[in-house]
Amino acid sequence: MQTNEKLALLRVEMAAKEIDAYIVSNADPHHNEYVADRWCCRQWLSGMKGSAGTVVITADWAGLWTDSRYYEIATNALSGSEIELIRMSDLNVPDIQTWIKSNLTAGQTVAFNGADTDLKQARELLKQFKVDGIKSLTNLDLIDTIWKDRPAPPVGELFIVDDSIAGQSIESKISAVREKMTTDGIDSYLLGRTDESCWLLNFRGTDIANNPTPYCHTLVTLDDVIFYIDEKKITASARAKFESAGVTIKSYDAVVQDLKDLDKSAKLLIIPNYISYQLAEAASHCVVIESRAIVTDLKGVKNEIEVNHLKQAMIEDGAALVKFYTWLYSTLRNGEEVTELSASRRLEACRAEFDGYRHVSFESIMGYGPDGALNHYSVDEESDKPVLLENIFLIDSGGNFTQGTTDTTRTIPMGEPTQQQKEDYTIVLHSMLDLLLLEFAEGATGAQLDGVCRQALWKHGRNFKHGTGHGVGFGLEVHEGPQNISGVSTEKMKLGMITTIEPGCYRPGSHGIRIENMVHTMLSKETEFGRFFKFENLTFCPINTDLIEPSLLPPHQVEWINHYHKEVIEKLTPLLNEEEQSWLKHECRELS
Amino acid sequence: MQTNEKLALLRVEMAAKEIDAYIVSNADPHHNEYVADRWCCRQWLSGMKGSAGTVVITADWAGLWTDSRYYEIATNALSGSEIELIRMSDLNVPDIQTWIKSNLTAGQTVAFNGADTDLKQARELLKQFKVDGIKSLTNLDLIDTIWKDRPAPPVGELFIVDDSIAGQSIESKISAVREKMTTDGIDSYLLGRTDESCWLLNFRGTDIANNPTPYCHTLVTLDDVIFYIDEKKITASARAKFESAGVTIKSYDAVVQDLKDLDKSAKLLIIPNYISYQLAEAASHCVVIESRAIVTDLKGVKNEIEVNHLKQAMIEDGAALVKFYTWLYSTLRNGEEVTELSASRRLEACRAEFDGYRHVSFESIMGYGPDGALNHYSVDEESDKPVLLENIFLIDSGGNFTQGTTDTTRTIPMGEPTQQQKEDYTIVLHSMLDLLLLEFAEGATGAQLDGVCRQALWKHGRNFKHGTGHGVGFGLEVHEGPQNISGVSTEKMKLGMITTIEPGCYRPGSHGIRIENMVHTMLSKETEFGRFFKFENLTFCPINTDLIEPSLLPPHQVEWINHYHKEVIEKLTPLLNEEEQSWLKHECRELS
Repeated sequence: MQTNEKLALLRVEMAAKEIDAYIVSNADPHHNEYVADRWCCRQWLSGMKGSAGTVVITADWAGLWTDSRYYEIATNALSGSEIELIRMSDLNVPDIQTWIKSNLTAGQTVAFNGADTDLKQARELLKQFKVDGIKSLTNLDLIDTIWKDRPAPPVGELFIVDDSIAGQSIESKISAVREKMTTDGIDSYLLGRTDESCWLLNFRGTDIANNPTPYCHTLVTLDDVIFYIDEKKITASARAKFESAGVTIKSYDAVVQDLKDLDKSAKLLIIPNYISYQLAEAASHCVVIESRAIVTDLKGVKNEIEVNHLKQAMIEDGAALVKFYTWLYSTLRNGEEVTELSASRRLEACRAEFDGYRHVSFESIMGYGPDGALNHYSVDEESDKPVLLENIFLIDSGGNFTQGTTDTTRTIPMGEPTQQQKEDYTIVLHSMLDLLLLEFAEGATGAQLDGVCRQALWKHGRNFKHGTGHGVGFGLEVHEGPQNISGVSTEKMKLGMITTIEPGCYRPGSHGIRIENMVHTMLSKETEFGRFFKFENLTFCPINTDLIEPSLLPPHQVEWINHYHKEVIEKLTPLLNEEEQSWLKHECRELS
Repeated sequence: MQTNEKLALLRVEMAAKEIDAYIVSNADPHHNEYVADRWCCRQWLSGMKGSAGTVVITADWAGLWTDSRYYEIATNALSGSEIELIRMSDLNVPDIQTWIKSNLTAGQTVAFNGADTDLKQARELLKQFKVDGIKSLTNLDLIDTIWKDRPAPPVGELFIVDDSIAGQSIESKISAVREKMTTDGIDSYLLGRTDESCWLLNFRGTDIANNPTPYCHTLVTLDDVIFYIDEKKITASARAKFESAGVTIKSYDAVVQDLKDLDKSAKLLIIPNYISYQLAEAASHCVVIESRAIVTDLKGVKNEIEVNHLKQAMIEDGAALVKFYTWLYSTLRNGEEVTELSASRRLEACRAEFDGYRHVSFESIMGYGPDGALNHYSVDEESDKPVLLENIFLIDSGGNFTQGTTDTTRTIPMGEPTQQQKEDYTIVLHSMLDLLLLEFAEGATGAQLDGVCRQALWKHGRNFKHGTGHGVGFGLEVHEGPQNISGVSTEKMKLGMITTIEPGCYRPGSHGIRIENMVHTMLSKETEFGRFFKFENLTFCPINTDLIEPSLLPPHQVEWINHYHKEVIEKLTPLLNEEEQSWLKHECRELS
């Protein structure tokens, strides 16, 4: 069925229900970054892949809002359909609410599926429409009616993470959550995000490719823990583990009725951007408390056992990258063909050589030459390009290991770099090290750290438009809160957090540079002014020195790089063959 | 009448109205930083002066919440009364809401005066109480009933700021506001903060000491501008100016009924922390839009005429400070007595020598020795101490001139400084210059700049607990939004903004150091990565060099200081007598 046929069917449904505009996205009930096929409604309707995009359809018009990362993909996907591309990164382009407010009149009706829209976003829509007297329907999944071969919800088996890896038992985690609930006067707490349940109950899932968190909910009260999940996913051993920890298992959908059945005096904690509008409505008779996610805060601070495991994973990750780079250069120098996609597959194979490797932690970004300048470029059959022995190559990748989740970016020269490339690279490295080597007071926010990181780039008239860093889950999602390093992050950096530092510099049409290490927040010193923290570097992978212009770096950073490379050789050598060792040794030669 | 007698009278009123807890603060209807005596209800009830403090009274208990700045003052004020001091800066001390929730039970009633409580704060209280089933009354001013000699609202005359000073006519400002209202779909806009009305209608007032903004409201619609103010304050010439700009004048209290009379389809912009709960309730039948304050955003970006006038005021301000320092040292060296209070008066007299000086822009902070370590120390008869030729002296002061508002802090040695004082001072100066000399991308937030400023202090195990900088009004309030430099400020720095940079280092019981310059945001350069901004220094006043340990400063900062001192001499010399010139020349000698 072509897009225009689907639109026609949808309009029949809209007319029957007197709906003047309908909003279709790829969101799932948990606001997941990666969603199962079942929830790719916008993709099914419009043909457009990618993480960001929303379709609005009216009786005589349809548009797809997406950002500049996806303009090209969307243009191709929409070709031949009546859906107009709305370039939301461009100046003066109205957002969806504004467009709807301008094109509908008071009394007309807009609808969306409240089961797949988070409360925060739904509220924002409803608030805006209310101002103009536009009516809203929030309980309609019109796509479901017309998508005849819609995939069923996935039923991937889940598996238990041993306490010796998690570093804390389920019982102990539940106690910690209840302690905080009691302090805050909360008696019921709905864990809306799936990684919260995984952390609390020490399990992982296999519902979604590259995402270890299966579709589930958990309701924690002061007496009970109820885990809502399709029982097909639960093995006998997992069931035994949950039951011995006092966890009750119910079907995934039972959460709606259980929320409706809560006593109206229940003090229920919800997190508006972690919970669907539908579930929030089911609980709206309770005393609803909107506050910080207790599990997100606990989970963000890694315990010593997690950190020690992660350190092992990071060494294997570094070794996998060295194996990959050695292969890449030698293959090309042998005159054999390498493309971004074949490189991506080889890199995954290098990681898979190590025990404990499960899957990539996100789709590798293989940005050769100009592709490196595309923000979050993801290679597929259509975008694939050959890699040559010229220009530079940005590679951002990571693995999900039993011992933890990794995320590393390196930019390497494929030929003789230009002076501009060397300057760009050196200033990005300067920025990365300014933050990596910073000591900062307890209580410092992500935005304060972000400013420190960017100052070298700013001084040289450069900047990058993405965030500087994000939290990383332990064997969980590669992007994890609460911390975040960006100009608007007021989250405080805490001891034990694992975070990336990844400044960049992108020249569209030419090249992109990003250098990313992962770091662990540690105590540096305590003075009469309080505690001061520093970062422990976790990433061990050569930082290419051919691209460095040493005169642009402060001397202490040059020293740091030389010391770092000695450590890289020491840690990775035991995991490498002779050819790889020799490549590594050359790559880690001293800067003067 | 003693505090306990007042409490007894208040309890009679509470019992009559079946109120179990009553909250009394010093807030006025505009959330002003400085309030007229009429609204100093907490001060009248408890005897405790100071900007922060709230009393909660129940049938058998009363407590005053204040922060560590005021512990000593509050302890003295409450001595002999039954009011208990609640030290809210200490660990694990419950805030007012938490205390009330723990001490009242469901069905009991808490009350406060919604006419003097801003909407944001009132909402927070009501939300918390609702969770525990505690009832609220928001329309009771019980203090008014028992405060027999309560001062009437002030009736200070207002005066017009000439267009040649303001740089923009009333008509042009109204047009700019309406343009933004139209873009945002707003048809009515209540200016809740008094400085918003002053800016829009180019006037200043004399209601409150040191605060040029009189009690007033302005309602801007697409057709009308209604200015609500006690007509006694309006001179004939001001009336003529307002009327010719199409402004209607109504009595101050008429705003309540006018809001009630708005059509229910009116799209009314309010700013929750700029408007009282009472006024928000009066308008609650409208389509209320809560968003950014249009006038605050416009006012924050100074026009060229304002900036040029301010530059003149800053030179006069610097000269006044040099006159003061010359007097201070020579008086003390002559063996005459100087106290913090006499110094404060002398400093005001030095500023008053200049045409255009109106009043101090805030109570001078005269922190001699250990007093310099008290956050926002304000000297009065009780706290006054002699200034000696030993230790160091922190002086933070400013003036409100026709040409603009100033705010400068310097720390000077009164004897031979210790090595620790020199290190503290030099690192604070390093921090101040790190930010003053920063180039930053358009869109940089206050928190990013804050991180850059603190890094030198952090590195040396030091920190300070206040913000790094604030916006400054033009002949208006010395603390002005929207921008703010602190770890949690997500406000963006814009071209034309005037901001302070004032890092510090405080050692309780010993000394305090702060160095503060004012800066103007300017364009630095434009590259393919966007526009980059820099700060233009506005403050011209010597930075004491006896306290500098040059080896702790990067060479470019030493150069900057030497160049700065040449500029200071050049700009201030014409305004000084021979003795002052000679002092200045010595103070500005070259650092090597």
